[in-house]
Amino acid sequence: MNEDTLTRKLRRRWPLIGDDCAVIPARAVDLLFTSDLSIEGVHFARQSSPQEIGYRAAARGLSDVAAMGGVPHYCLVSFALAPWTDQRWIDGFYSGLEKLLRKTKTALAGGDISHAREFLCDVVIWGSVEKGKALLRSGARPGNDIYVSGPLGGWRHKRAIVPRLDLGRKLLGKATSCMDISDGLALDLHRLALASGVEAHLDSVPVLKGATRKQALHDGEDYQLLYTVPPRERVPGIRIGSVVEGQPGRVTLEGKPLPVIGYDHFRQHRS
Amino acid sequence: MNEDTLTRKLRRRWPLIGDDCAVIPARAVDLLFTSDLSIEGVHFARQSSPQEIGYRAAARGLSDVAAMGGVPHYCLVSFALAPWTDQRWIDGFYSGLEKLLRKTKTALAGGDISHAREFLCDVVIWGSVEKGKALLRSGARPGNDIYVSGPLGGWRHKRAIVPRLDLGRKLLGKATSCMDISDGLALDLHRLALASGVEAHLDSVPVLKGATRKQALHDGEDYQLLYTVPPRERVPGIRIGSVVEGQPGRVTLEGKPLPVIGYDHFRQHRS
Repeated sequence: MNEDTLTRKLRRRWPLIGDDCAVIPARAVDLLFTSDLSIEGVHFARQSSPQEIGYRAAARGLSDVAAMGGVPHYCLVSFALAPWTDQRWIDGFYSGLEKLLRKTKTALAGGDISHAREFLCDVVIWGSVEKGKALLRSGARPGNDIYVSGPLGGWRHKRAIVPRLDLGRKLLGKATSCMDISDGLALDLHRLALASGVEAHLDSVPVLKGATRKQALHDGEDYQLLYTVPPRERVPGIRIGSVVEGQPGRVTLEGKPLPVIGYDHFRQHRS
Repeated sequence: MNEDTLTRKLRRRWPLIGDDCAVIPARAVDLLFTSDLSIEGVHFARQSSPQEIGYRAAARGLSDVAAMGGVPHYCLVSFALAPWTDQRWIDGFYSGLEKLLRKTKTALAGGDISHAREFLCDVVIWGSVEKGKALLRSGARPGNDIYVSGPLGGWRHKRAIVPRLDLGRKLLGKATSCMDISDGLALDLHRLALASGVEAHLDSVPVLKGATRKQALHDGEDYQLLYTVPPRERVPGIRIGSVVEGQPGRVTLEGKPLPVIGYDHFRQHRS
């Protein structure tokens, strides 16, 4: 079992599951929901500043809303205190988190408090997008160009995540598919290609200064947007390849098959 | 610092925080959101069956929706694998959780997967209630009777939680305030009385067979509803006392002040 087989299994019973956000039709708009865990030792080190940890926890969900072309509105934050988190630390955590919420006009609306051996939190973002317009993973078509919003491989370099909300809005009506890169370009592009029933050919990989090509391909937590666009459409970003009919989910780089590896939480407990 | 001081501090900046669910006005209804963590060693023991743990994780959020008089619609489930959870365990967890979701007509819509040293999950329930009708903690008035939906002290006896959704609906338009008992009657009634600006006088405490009065007063995780009702209103449940003007947040039992203690996650790391 890995994350994708579990998700596929659940999706057979619960069809709303599967994209960066759940898309739920309401009267005037489609509502977007996403939930992201941030766990000590997995998503951040205890030594990071609490402001940074709080900021990053909110950024992950906001990035999912960006990937759907949506606008964020509300946020729930549930967290578990660790034995080493004191009041000052929690205040710092909230100040980083609230800084990004205010910047993105997202209101904190509730949550839960518990405790555990490590500090962890779950951030839920609720947003909306114009009816029927959400950017899904499943819309890539043969002939489309593949883009990323910026160079990759930033995770180990602890770059601040900037949720690409403005870009997501600009892609509405232009991109045929979109997702954010949270588990590495190779694995996430495989997911997008599989959801769309197409094959993806990469010509190049834009690598962040100081990172390696392997990191740009397989590290998680980049939070750049990955999207496909019909050839004559002009969009911001870096063109990295093209969509072909081929074999659903297959990804090649410079003509050679790219192994589908990336961050998988199931794998972490297997070794 | 304890849970309540943190919540109060946050509420000054974010007024939506504070009740069992966040209440967010939409066009035709008010939307309800709640997020509840379930953590190994805090909310359940590893030895419990995965079905029971999954069921209980969903029940906690559904109970919050019940306490607001609402109807649940959608659910997000984020979980962290522990080193000891295998595929069969995760399947059991989902089967318990999905059993209650189907029973309450709640659709699983998404979530997140991660890993941690202990198994944990966060369940988000999204529901709705008739506009302006949500049962809040702040509506108790002097002269009201205080009710609970059943005998208390069940936590240590591992009774299955039954979210009181039908009762919540029956209380709409009748109860002046309502909440579910998750941290013990004494502490939760104190919270309700404080939110309403009133004092609460308990005449009696209905104790579950096999539990002690102390457990009925101070143990968490009962998930019975606690509500206040004008004297001539007929509602299901057990009358346990009355609301008086007095001192906001003060609770007495048979005339004597009741200490405000109950489950507090901040306290767990203090000793």
